[in-house]
Parts: sequence; structure tokens; C-alpha cells
Amino acid sequence: MERCLELEQAYAIADKNGKTVGAELGRIGYKGDLAASARPLKAAFEVHIEQGPILEQQDLQIGVLSGIQGLRWYDLVIDGEACHAGPTPMESRRDPFMAAAPIIAGCYELAARYAPWGRATFGDIRAEPGSRNTVPERLIVNVDLRHPDAEILDQMDAAFRELVARECQQRELGFQVNETWHMPVTTFDPQCVGAVKSATDNLGYTSMEMVSGAGHDSLYIATVAPTSMIFVPCENGISHNEIENAKPEDLEAGCNVLLHAMLEIDSNEDLK
Amino acid sequence: MERCLELEQAYAIADKNGKTVGAELGRIGYKGDLAASARPLKAAFEVHIEQGPILEQQDLQIGVLSGIQGLRWYDLVIDGEACHAGPTPMESRRDPFMAAAPIIAGCYELAARYAPWGRATFGDIRAEPGSRNTVPERLIVNVDLRHPDAEILDQMDAAFRELVARECQQRELGFQVNETWHMPVTTFDPQCVGAVKSATDNLGYTSMEMVSGAGHDSLYIATVAPTSMIFVPCENGISHNEIENAKPEDLEAGCNVLLHAMLEIDSNEDLK
Repeated sequence: MERCLELEQAYAIADKNGKTVGAELGRIGYKGDLAASARPLKAAFEVHIEQGPILEQQDLQIGVLSGIQGLRWYDLVIDGEACHAGPTPMESRRDPFMAAAPIIAGCYELAARYAPWGRATFGDIRAEPGSRNTVPERLIVNVDLRHPDAEILDQMDAAFRELVARECQQRELGFQVNETWHMPVTTFDPQCVGAVKSATDNLGYTSMEMVSGAGHDSLYIATVAPTSMIFVPCENGISHNEIENAKPEDLEAGCNVLLHAMLEIDSNEDLK
Repeated sequence: MERCLELEQAYAIADKNGKTVGAELGRIGYKGDLAASARPLKAAFEVHIEQGPILEQQDLQIGVLSGIQGLRWYDLVIDGEACHAGPTPMESRRDPFMAAAPIIAGCYELAARYAPWGRATFGDIRAEPGSRNTVPERLIVNVDLRHPDAEILDQMDAAFRELVARECQQRELGFQVNETWHMPVTTFDPQCVGAVKSATDNLGYTSMEMVSGAGHDSLYIATVAPTSMIFVPCENGISHNEIENAKPEDLEAGCNVLLHAMLEIDSNEDLK
């Protein structure tokens, strides 16, 4: 499966300090030797805080998940020529920032063109050599593009590559668009999505159908079993943070929908 | 003098790894205890490779220096809010890059407005927390603006501050424009500049009058004695680099101009 990694590939992944998954698992004593094998599952559900602000803003209790956004991660490398900030006339420079600024702005336009679900994020950037009075010879920008429609995500990918080529070539800058990860769009099982929807309606909770912007365990479970997810609101969409907060009554609603969706699927004879 | 640092201030300057001038001088055994005192100087000349491409491009042998560009260094800090790259709708984000892209583009426009001597350089940039799938909560950008006319450099400073405020405020981003250094414009002594010019002409070298884009020892010497500088071409303007290269005949020309300018000033009774 394209979205899964081979064991050795997973072990070799390094963070920006060079620490690998394999070595760190060993260090903390969690590098086991049991094979991961598929177990028979009739269906799977996952309940989660939204990690985004949509339900809270719309004052809804339940998100009925139809799938998970696809994403593409890139390391964009722009190569210019280092030169001294003072003596070098602007028109003689091959300055990576001269392309980076319109590329970043162009990616935001791309996300806006495919609103409301298009996303463009620049999580990190590095200038080399990174000296205050030197035009950088290289910029490395982390680019994250997302959309829940696979075809549109492909269009965003193509438009991004064109944008980079155009902005760099006209300034005689070198460039590499290194795609580091492509997480394809996940579409959840219609019967599982239907079970979440009818449980929500039967329990009288307000809801909307939506897709997840973040990856989840269900992304992988969906490759081996019929799957859907349930979202509940969280304050300001903040997660993975000490100020993460969700209301007890929303958590209760999520658990109730989970229970009733499972009961419905359990009695469904179409699924084995 | 505004351009000079107090001793303790100079010792305390740290690089981005936190190493200070004082500690590093101590470490290599160069932290002496002699006071720096002005010595009587009738005049001073400095000959240097251009560190820029202008003389080479115009096929000239000598640059007659009338002064040194002023510069202003800033740490531009843009504060947003960290959030997850997937679930957070674009319009809910407070993403520092959304202001940084037009600010960088706007600074290049500012340099172009005051061409050919206006300069804008972004030597380094840092995103915090710097995680691939998180909108940064903070961007720190090193900005370097230069111009040889003090009044225009002041206009560039004001326009830069306005640009930052406008782009950040409309996106509800916080910002700080921390000026870390202001090196005022240096105008060299007219008699010293004249001595360089007449030595160049008398020796039959091709030349142009120009200002230095980089700071030099003469920047400080000019505060205690009549001063000028002589530039010779260097290949592609590259300096502080192993491929730095200047032609022997150009170095000879520079030395000849230096000698004859000194002889002329030595016989000048107006200067004591």
C-alpha cells in the first residue's frame, strides 16, 4: 500500500537533529520483534477531537467524517549564489528569497482557489549559510499542500511545480521540488459513515458531514476494514498542546455516537 | 561616536550560537589590555578589492571612493499562532508567512525605487517551532537595508516600518522591528578623494567614482582622520571565499594609485 512504510524505511526516518525512529525506539526500550499482522475486523470507528475550529464556530456537536484529506509534503530547495549584502547590485544577484516570496504568496492563492478545503502551510524554512549580511546561496522551505479531493490535490501539485519553475527560472535560480510524502485521499466506507450519521440523528445531536484535515489511525485502519470517524468540537481547534480543551458534554455525545454506530454495524448483515 | 561600540558592549556581542566576542578573544589568547587611543594621522588611504561586480562589468581599473553606504540592520519578528496544517481553515489562521511574503517582496520594491544604490537583503530566517505540519507561531527575519544617501536611507527605514505594520496589522499578526545596528553614511574627505582621483588620472588608469557597499576599516578611520579608499576589480565580485580572485595588473594599479595619492597628500600644506 502506497501509504504504508516498509519496516526498515520507517526505522530509518530521521528528525532534523538526525535521530532515527529505529534508534529512538531502541533507546526507550520499545523496539519489539512481533510481526504486525492484519486481524479480522468487521468495521472500525474512531472518535477524536476535531483539532480544528469548524464545529465550534458553527456551534455543532458532532462531525460525521466521510474521509481524510490527502496531503503532499515537499522540501523545496532554491539555489542562488551567496554574495555580500552591500556591494552587490540588486540586478546582479541570484537571491533565493526573490523567488521564495512570490512562491509562498502563490501557494496561498492556490489554497484560496480551492477554498474552503485547500490548504497551504510552510512549517519550516532554512537559509544557508544564514549570515546576516550575505545573500543566501540556498533556501530550503517545507511545503505542505492538502485537499480532500484527490483530483484537485493533483491539480494543486501540478500548479505548485509550475509556479516554482516559473519564479526560479526567470531569476536564473536552481530549484528542486523534493516530494517527501504523499498521503493519498482516504474515502471512508459509506455504510460506516451512514451508521455514524443515523446514530447522531437518532440521538438528536446537531452535526455536519466533513473530512479530516489531519491524518489519524483510521487512515491506516481504513486500508484493512470498513471505517469511519466521529469528531467532537475542541476549543479554538487547539490540540497537542497543554491548553487543549473539549467540553464534557461533547465528549459524552461523541461516545454515545460511537456506541450506537457500533451497535448498528454489529447488526448489519451486509458486513461480515 | 554613534558608529563605535563601548568595549564591554563589543565584548558582549554574541553570534547565533551564543559565543561572545569577549569569550572568544580570551579563548584564542587575543584579549589584550592596551587601551585603544587615537594616534596623530595626517590622512589615511585604504586599497581594497571591490567585493562587487561593478568595476569588472564596466571594464574599469580603479574605483575612486567618495564614501561608504549607510546600513540599517533589523531583526523583524512576526508573531502569529501555531496551529495544525491540516484541520485549520486558511481564513482562521494567523500565519506569519502570510505577512512575511509581501514584506520581503515590498523590500525588494523599496530597493528598486532607490536604484541603483538601494539594497535589501535577507541573510537569515527562522521559523518557530519549525515543525513541518504546523503553522509557525513566530518568524524571525534578518533584514539589511542600505543606501549611500543618509536621507534616502531614512526614507527606506520609514517605508519599511510602514510596510511591516500594514501587512501584519491587516492579518492580526504581532510584530517587532528591532533595529540591531545603524551604520551611518560615511562621506570621505574631499581632498583625499581628489588625491585618489588625480593619481588615477595621472597614471592613465580608467576609473569611476563610487561608494562602497560594504563597511571597511576606513569607516572608523574616517572619524579620526581625513580618509579615502581605492577599489580594484575582483572576479564576479566574490570575496571572503576561496575562489576570490583579482588580476595582478589591477592590484599593481591599486598600489600605484595608493602610493601617488599618499605622496600628493604628503605635500599638501592644507592638511596638518
